[in-house]
Amino acid sequence: MHDERITAVETRDVRFPLLEGAGSDAIHSGSEYAFATTLITTEARNFGTGIVLTLGNGNQLVCRAIEMLAQKLIGRDVEELMSNFGDYSRRLADDPQLRWLGPHKGVVHLALASLTNASFDLWAKMRGVPLWRLLLDLSAQQLIRLLDLSYLENVLTCEDVLSILATEMSGREAREPILQHGYPGYDTSVGWFEYGDDKVKALAQQALQRGFRAFKLKVGSEDGSRDLRRAFMLRALAGSEAMIMLDANQQWTLPTAVKICRELTAMSPYFVEEPTHPDDIDAHKRLAEAIAPTRIALGEHVPNRVLFKNMMQAGALHFVQVDCTRVAGISEFLTVSLLARKFGLPVVPHVGDMGQIHQHLVLFNHIALGHEALFLECIPHLQKHFVSPARIENGVYRTPELPGSSSDLHGVTPAR
Amino acid sequence: MHDERITAVETRDVRFPLLEGAGSDAIHSGSEYAFATTLITTEARNFGTGIVLTLGNGNQLVCRAIEMLAQKLIGRDVEELMSNFGDYSRRLADDPQLRWLGPHKGVVHLALASLTNASFDLWAKMRGVPLWRLLLDLSAQQLIRLLDLSYLENVLTCEDVLSILATEMSGREAREPILQHGYPGYDTSVGWFEYGDDKVKALAQQALQRGFRAFKLKVGSEDGSRDLRRAFMLRALAGSEAMIMLDANQQWTLPTAVKICRELTAMSPYFVEEPTHPDDIDAHKRLAEAIAPTRIALGEHVPNRVLFKNMMQAGALHFVQVDCTRVAGISEFLTVSLLARKFGLPVVPHVGDMGQIHQHLVLFNHIALGHEALFLECIPHLQKHFVSPARIENGVYRTPELPGSSSDLHGVTPAR
Repeated sequence: MHDERITAVETRDVRFPLLEGAGSDAIHSGSEYAFATTLITTEARNFGTGIVLTLGNGNQLVCRAIEMLAQKLIGRDVEELMSNFGDYSRRLADDPQLRWLGPHKGVVHLALASLTNASFDLWAKMRGVPLWRLLLDLSAQQLIRLLDLSYLENVLTCEDVLSILATEMSGREAREPILQHGYPGYDTSVGWFEYGDDKVKALAQQALQRGFRAFKLKVGSEDGSRDLRRAFMLRALAGSEAMIMLDANQQWTLPTAVKICRELTAMSPYFVEEPTHPDDIDAHKRLAEAIAPTRIALGEHVPNRVLFKNMMQAGALHFVQVDCTRVAGISEFLTVSLLARKFGLPVVPHVGDMGQIHQHLVLFNHIALGHEALFLECIPHLQKHFVSPARIENGVYRTPELPGSSSDLHGVTPAR
Repeated sequence: MHDERITAVETRDVRFPLLEGAGSDAIHSGSEYAFATTLITTEARNFGTGIVLTLGNGNQLVCRAIEMLAQKLIGRDVEELMSNFGDYSRRLADDPQLRWLGPHKGVVHLALASLTNASFDLWAKMRGVPLWRLLLDLSAQQLIRLLDLSYLENVLTCEDVLSILATEMSGREAREPILQHGYPGYDTSVGWFEYGDDKVKALAQQALQRGFRAFKLKVGSEDGSRDLRRAFMLRALAGSEAMIMLDANQQWTLPTAVKICRELTAMSPYFVEEPTHPDDIDAHKRLAEAIAPTRIALGEHVPNRVLFKNMMQAGALHFVQVDCTRVAGISEFLTVSLLARKFGLPVVPHVGDMGQIHQHLVLFNHIALGHEALFLECIPHLQKHFVSPARIENGVYRTPELPGSSSDLHGVTPAR
């Protein structure tokens, strides 16, 4: 392994308009998918790509924030940086001036995510291995030095992390066949909010034919009757064995969520996602109690490990949808995955990265942490823009083999 | 009353370097105070000033976000806008593209606060009354239409708000003498983190002579012994009757906070502020139980009504330090003040506005909502930059009489 200094950090405000209705939900319409992209270059002109998702306007705010944080990276050796990334991440997150704008949430935290993801991508490329392999080959001590465990002291200490890693080491070999077999994807693109019933039916049928057995439907309509009709329609079409997830994208109040989730019980949703405001820990806890055994998933708008810890402590969620393009990148994603392991909760990432990075992280979580590789969200709209798009065959995510985190985008390369 | 259309919204990135050590705490050093400032102008060239505090770098991010949100204001009639401001605020907060960057937190939410504060300032100036008077003169129905109560349905409904307002109406007259007598300030500028012991002593003595009987000291040192020494030093100097608040600015872990707060009990802090991470509801709740009767204050980093609701539900805080330059401006400040009334908790604002706007809001909270006017933080470093700085005489905030929210800054006026 060789080392190189970082010579430049650039940003790109990359935008992808979506076709009519794609990406729509009860809260978001007319969106485009946008990546606030970081490009980190070394003296030998290796480069790493880091992405975070936004929905168009505001992407340039994240790019500007990346540039403000990036100065501290210039001149650092990559291996030295990654040998102590947790400390580095914490120093950036606690910048004495920018911290005020959060802390650890919003535009500046998204910027840290993009920088972090670029650093990991660069590191894996320079080691010539895919991200999942890089992470699996780290020692427990090396892994722990990637993490910022501050403010988790009462729940997840360094010793806890070492204990989880040691305990799960024995089962690694038995779990490695996932590298050959892959794991299921679930198709979110069949059920966007603005799609008419006929389109949802046609897309779901096509997805069934392509091998998918798990689907997401957007709900959260004004009076709920549209949600009910469409949910039962999809159940009838996909069959009783299919997993159907319903995503309200925070549209409901707690009283509304209780009412409509009870009515939806009869179509057996696998989980209900983001039923109400993502900061409302108590509401999710009450809802979970009120609608059991229906289960709750959330995380795409939970910005950091501290709020995830509180969600888990309260019993407010059953599926942890942490997204490495929302929390502080791959590093905080791993921390939240360890937290989830401690609480015995499954991690089912939200794919702000379109599944490119998370396909690696699901493999790591399964093999090294013993998480079930339940499934991973599949949103294919941007596949053609990635240099090596995730391969989903017969509804199954196949193991990525190229070095890095699969984040490179066509035409998005360093200028310098 | 006349009405006018809004013709322009401009921003100013206003920065004020601080003298050596001023503004420092356990987390923030080398800061400058900065205001991301909104200037809203009408066709008759009336203008409103809205400020939110940041600590320097990043202020331009907020200004840029203000510009992105501002377009929806142009051409609106001021009275018509303010007759339904809650809806308007909600639409801006839920912008289908920018919402992703939060929701309701970070840079975009700060931008909404600045826009909101400028709108209220303009409204009060056009009516020719100080902000406190404007708010007191609104009917209950007018007041409720300033608020976005969404996601509070399980705790604070419109009916609850009307009930609070109606109940407190009977005591208004008895509380109005506060307009003549004022209410106490407490001095934060005696105890900045980087000030040496001698400086703290000298400043506290001067503040006592100027009539202050309440003081804040920054704590959160590496091993805690410095905090203990300085806290007992200030108690000895200020006397047993003085109110001394200790502010850790999130520096402690939960275990550390429990330990050091117990050691601090003997100097009887009036409250301990921001002991740990502001998102950690559960940690504050546990701490409150562990260190009772010592009480906890927080809020300067709590970004919205939903997180405040959760804090209150959990019993995680005893003093609500909501800041109208952190939540979505004066509107969400009022909502949180109503929530606090529902939970029977006192509101003691953090003064990101240097006390300029909050001096009005304390009067309204006391007279209309029946909140105790306990005291208001006093940070005088920027007084000379305001056109009409808050008057604090003999340690007492005097009632502001000029039209508006006291937010105008020297040399910060519309170009157009």
